[in-house]
Amino acid sequence: MQDDILTILDNVLTAVRPTQGERDELAELSRRVCGYIREEGVRCEVVGSGARKTWISGAHDLDLFIMLSADLTREELETEGLRVAKLVADRADSYETRYAEHPYIHARFADYRVDLVPCYQIASPEEMRSAVDRTPFHNQYVLPRISGLEDEVLLLKQFMKCAHVYGSELRVRGFSGFLCELLIIHYGLFLAVLEAACNWRDGLLIEPGVTTSQRARQGAQHSPSGGVWEPLSVIDPTDPNRNVAAALSLDQFYTFVDVARGFLAEPSIEYFFAKPLMPVRKSEIIAATDARGTDLLAISFEIPDMVEDIAYPQLYKLRQSAIGLLDENDFTVLGSAIGIRSASKTTDTVMLLIELESGRLPALRKHVGPPAYMRAHAERFKSKFTNNDTFSNVYIENGQYMVDIHRRYTSAKHLLESELHSCALGKQMREHIRAGYGVAEGKEIADIFDMEFLKGYFTDKIGVK
Amino acid sequence: MQDDILTILDNVLTAVRPTQGERDELAELSRRVCGYIREEGVRCEVVGSGARKTWISGAHDLDLFIMLSADLTREELETEGLRVAKLVADRADSYETRYAEHPYIHARFADYRVDLVPCYQIASPEEMRSAVDRTPFHNQYVLPRISGLEDEVLLLKQFMKCAHVYGSELRVRGFSGFLCELLIIHYGLFLAVLEAACNWRDGLLIEPGVTTSQRARQGAQHSPSGGVWEPLSVIDPTDPNRNVAAALSLDQFYTFVDVARGFLAEPSIEYFFAKPLMPVRKSEIIAATDARGTDLLAISFEIPDMVEDIAYPQLYKLRQSAIGLLDENDFTVLGSAIGIRSASKTTDTVMLLIELESGRLPALRKHVGPPAYMRAHAERFKSKFTNNDTFSNVYIENGQYMVDIHRRYTSAKHLLESELHSCALGKQMREHIRAGYGVAEGKEIADIFDMEFLKGYFTDKIGVK
Repeated sequence: MQDDILTILDNVLTAVRPTQGERDELAELSRRVCGYIREEGVRCEVVGSGARKTWISGAHDLDLFIMLSADLTREELETEGLRVAKLVADRADSYETRYAEHPYIHARFADYRVDLVPCYQIASPEEMRSAVDRTPFHNQYVLPRISGLEDEVLLLKQFMKCAHVYGSELRVRGFSGFLCELLIIHYGLFLAVLEAACNWRDGLLIEPGVTTSQRARQGAQHSPSGGVWEPLSVIDPTDPNRNVAAALSLDQFYTFVDVARGFLAEPSIEYFFAKPLMPVRKSEIIAATDARGTDLLAISFEIPDMVEDIAYPQLYKLRQSAIGLLDENDFTVLGSAIGIRSASKTTDTVMLLIELESGRLPALRKHVGPPAYMRAHAERFKSKFTNNDTFSNVYIENGQYMVDIHRRYTSAKHLLESELHSCALGKQMREHIRAGYGVAEGKEIADIFDMEFLKGYFTDKIGVK
Repeated sequence: MQDDILTILDNVLTAVRPTQGERDELAELSRRVCGYIREEGVRCEVVGSGARKTWISGAHDLDLFIMLSADLTREELETEGLRVAKLVADRADSYETRYAEHPYIHARFADYRVDLVPCYQIASPEEMRSAVDRTPFHNQYVLPRISGLEDEVLLLKQFMKCAHVYGSELRVRGFSGFLCELLIIHYGLFLAVLEAACNWRDGLLIEPGVTTSQRARQGAQHSPSGGVWEPLSVIDPTDPNRNVAAALSLDQFYTFVDVARGFLAEPSIEYFFAKPLMPVRKSEIIAATDARGTDLLAISFEIPDMVEDIAYPQLYKLRQSAIGLLDENDFTVLGSAIGIRSASKTTDTVMLLIELESGRLPALRKHVGPPAYMRAHAERFKSKFTNNDTFSNVYIENGQYMVDIHRRYTSAKHLLESELHSCALGKQMREHIRAGYGVAEGKEIADIFDMEFLKGYFTDKIGVK
């Protein structure tokens, strides 16, 4: 069995370990681009997986930090940083300016994607002035400790990629590359991380290289997040108040736990390289929906192209609002899926799919009133519903006043069409929702969503297995 | 306002107080029938409302107890008791032998119904050997205390009759005549009972003539029933371990509270004499059902003529089993009604009506598994549902394993047809259910149930107001 696993891991490494040629090429490109920066009299630091030799073969990403004086104002940092970055980018094949906490440049040199990120050069993380200033310190922490463990990091990243839990971006809410490295530093080996994960429970606290312990579920005084419950807290070695795993969702945490158990129980290369999914045809989707007997609702609209990490939180919020609205109105939500697809150069299509036990409810709704012993409440309740347009008189059931009234929405489609725009929504989503949106149901859904998206929901949930 | 109330009460009393002619007639009949008993050398006691002058005018019932020696065995009591009763009954217009805890005779003299009940003549209730032995002591307790308060009792009984909470039989689960008398003895006046009831809360303990207090909801050490929660406990003055209100249901308790509040807030003669209900037509019932958008199910079958107090508990149990079965299978029950109608000389028709949010559910059912951190449970759950005929793979949601499986019953009608006979049921009902039963749904229901029964459910609940 161990042999089996080791053979599998060897095969994985053969596929994902960058070749010497790749390493040389990346090193050569780093040297060259850093040279352009230094020409401007500015220090340059190579960070991320490129610096640590922990990138997956074929992932041609390079992160270069332009280290500027801490004496600059924030505005000067942006101006000077962009000036240097642009001088470098002018020698690239193409580039664009992107905006996170402050602007940076994303450039292309041959088939490499190079991020040129201005930051303050500071002496210690306590002096941090912009969110990216911490990154060089991460690099300094990881570099000496990861040496000799690069293969272990590669295995963990590839394993997580295949389980769709790799990446801390808000679309994924999984494990970042830095988090992978910290887990390897902490546990020593890829298989040791997996062995440990089999018994993980949410509320886990890891101080890399020091302790692993279970936090109490109540009272989050030990949580770096200061109160918000996070399934996993991994203390940032450069900042004890920061949780490196803050972006990780509960379900992604347990998905990793689950695949770790699965792989150790029955090792297979498929935990690293998924079998390609068969394409799904529209007729199959329709047949699967019919067999389930459930009702599907879909909301889809176009928004101007947005940064993923801004669009996704708003889409989560939209989904939460839609589900909340349906819950409050007694519709039973069985599942949902979201997605954003590029629709054109400048616009994206937002997709929200909701599956309901039923999209229809009877006109009659049982309305629960106060306990019968509460005299004053009872009087108010009775006077409110007497001579009202109800299905019943006020009656007593199990010691409580009740009345059968008319339900406001008997159709989930109509409910979402009428009320979704007035729910809590992100800024951009709200604007586009207010401008108008349609709700599709039943077979229409196969017309408005691409099969790729529906396949995603149906593969996990509808068992087109 | 007070004047208003007093006028109303006067009018009620004029209608329900037995006339002198009625009283004389009943006294004359008592004397005559008691005479027949004494001819046999046996003592006779007149008990119940006839003895206490607290019967509602027109209710021609007389309870005569045949007091036999406590030296007799139980068998001798039955033989000798029936012998004496039959000698009396031979002079009646008609009679039949009935069976409660032991046999008694129900006879008709002109338009009077006379119960001839054999019991042991004992010195105190502690020596009680049969359930009816207590009744003469009740009579002895009430007689001296109710004198001068007869009108108050009449008002309370008529008020309760009109609210359908009068009677301790299991069909009604309301207030017995004896309980009415004790309440009047305790509170002194009809209106005082009503005033008190406005603030009653279930868990009330009344020791007639002594205290009124609220029992703690937890720990039923004060309850005469020794543990079973009863909304009202009224200590039997002849036996501190007996709750006179044991038959009263929670909803009947609060229905009385509710009408007491209603009457005191807006006094009206309608609280004593209900306006006759308009007859309901089949088309109205069908239209009302359509408007509600709910699904109705009906079970109806014939049983041999049974004593009500045996049939009703079994029918309650049948209803409970049917509702439990529907609940377990995710059908939402909105309401129900039961009834027993005489179908012929020897058979009764049992009727059970159930209203559901929907009689249909989708084929897909979300099945919740163990929390994801529970490794051993997780493995068992996953192995159970892998390669199974499911709609989905096992997935993780909110930290729990889940799988979408096939629902066993998508039709409530089919569920009841297939499973009801294997539920907990009373002896006779079980036999008849096992022999076969049909479940009707939708418009069929108006064909199998009489309008009288449906009106009962629809008046309270469907608002044919």
